[in-house]
Amino acid sequence: MGDTGNGKANKGGEWLAIDWGTSRRRAWRMSATGDVQDTLEDDRGVLAIPPGGFLAELASLRNRLGQLPALAAGMVGSNRGWVEAPYQPLPAGLPDLAARLTHVPGESFTIVPGLADTADVMRGEEVQLLGAVEAGLVPPDALVCQPGTHNKWAKLQAGRITGFTTVMTGELFALLKSGGVLAGMLDADATDSPAFRAGVAEAAEARDLSASLFKVRAAVLLKRLPLADAASFASGLLIGADVAPRLQPGPIHILAAEPLAGLYAAAIGTLGGHSIAHESGAAFLAGMRRIRELSA
Amino acid sequence: MGDTGNGKANKGGEWLAIDWGTSRRRAWRMSATGDVQDTLEDDRGVLAIPPGGFLAELASLRNRLGQLPALAAGMVGSNRGWVEAPYQPLPAGLPDLAARLTHVPGESFTIVPGLADTADVMRGEEVQLLGAVEAGLVPPDALVCQPGTHNKWAKLQAGRITGFTTVMTGELFALLKSGGVLAGMLDADATDSPAFRAGVAEAAEARDLSASLFKVRAAVLLKRLPLADAASFASGLLIGADVAPRLQPGPIHILAAEPLAGLYAAAIGTLGGHSIAHESGAAFLAGMRRIRELSA
Repeated sequence: MGDTGNGKANKGGEWLAIDWGTSRRRAWRMSATGDVQDTLEDDRGVLAIPPGGFLAELASLRNRLGQLPALAAGMVGSNRGWVEAPYQPLPAGLPDLAARLTHVPGESFTIVPGLADTADVMRGEEVQLLGAVEAGLVPPDALVCQPGTHNKWAKLQAGRITGFTTVMTGELFALLKSGGVLAGMLDADATDSPAFRAGVAEAAEARDLSASLFKVRAAVLLKRLPLADAASFASGLLIGADVAPRLQPGPIHILAAEPLAGLYAAAIGTLGGHSIAHESGAAFLAGMRRIRELSA
Repeated sequence: MGDTGNGKANKGGEWLAIDWGTSRRRAWRMSATGDVQDTLEDDRGVLAIPPGGFLAELASLRNRLGQLPALAAGMVGSNRGWVEAPYQPLPAGLPDLAARLTHVPGESFTIVPGLADTADVMRGEEVQLLGAVEAGLVPPDALVCQPGTHNKWAKLQAGRITGFTTVMTGELFALLKSGGVLAGMLDADATDSPAFRAGVAEAAEARDLSASLFKVRAAVLLKRLPLADAASFASGLLIGADVAPRLQPGPIHILAAEPLAGLYAAAIGTLGGHSIAHESGAAFLAGMRRIRELSA
């Protein structure tokens, strides 16, 4: 391999941070001192890339952001990604991640490991979680919620992840929207509204999600719920079912962008809990910077 | 309308019974004395038929089974069907249904009403439920479970339906199989197996379905669950979440065909309940025969 096509020439200087997830990809060109110089976000997530296609995807990304060494986290290191980066056990902090990086041979492309608990796995969220502590957003002992396709609830102790649970809230909403009897009812944007809060309350009280979800259709048919509120009610059911089993007396730290951050905060509040929302992009970069420093 | 194209010539003699659901359609040619002379089953469910297409579908069906008057139940009477047959309130028995039939003008096509509870609806299952009592399969006071895309749990008192709940178990399984992170893991047939029963137990204990479902993927990735068992485990989670909130001390009557009847019986048994399974096709026809007699 030459040193212009894979970024080796710039090792120690500028670099690329990549959050390469299932359906989305974000990348940042970082200066040697850790400032963001350029960024992109697109839909070239892992599932959009055919087998054998990662080398070309990386070349395309470097054509846009620069021929630089890259540090990536997320599903790119999964068995559906480019090269499998073995899961690391708990507890795990940033030094544990930095000590177990996987290098794609000859490509100056390095992958942060995911984490495995006894019955759960994560890839990508660990960098954001630990980066949120590194950035001073979240205290070293905290319960953190990361709403998304696969929401992660993580317990942090002394700045390390000691346990976590994945909840398929976003994926279930997307599947229900895409097909089945609720398809066509869920196209409006879910908003924090009486319908949303009614869904949250119903989910928490019934703890019977697959029955509660049918009430969306029934309530619309029986004209008890305006069609325009169906998405908010369904979102409330799913987020309520997600939040209710994990409420705690202390604050819940939310790492997400809007509108999900606001919906989760509303659900937590509806159920009597307390939340603090943080900007998630800064947390990811703080984690990646620290991993790069630790592995230098 | 002529009397050869819409079955009017045979009124009082042979007739067609049709169970016209969301995705499937079954039809029977019945003799004047109620015996089955011919039958068909196909995938011409309501969602497969374009707007305005029901007249042609009925003509095609009559070409196969005979130019006869038809009595239909199911989603054909919904707002996605041919003509909307208004929901009837609870409690409801076969005489209540027979008194509120909807006739498609000029087509000798009659639709049995669905039922509405305060927050739930059914179409088609009511005939099978009440027909099961009519046929002597299920006692007049019973809890009945009808596994399927949208499982119905109905409470019968004195031979009338007094309450019911819909659970989207089959639809959720189909959606998870069709897309998202579990797609490709659920293609094996779900069977009553240790993996299935482990799923049932997990669902009942956790009451946290959208988190438990992710464990299917995590357990396969962590090699705690063979890929071949993933469909059984996921089915156990969904059926366990369906059964657990509705267990009761007395027997639960199951109206379903295999393999679902066996899976629900296994789930009910795993959770300490007791079930009795009945053949569901006979129940539907018993209900339709009685409605036809009552409305003659």
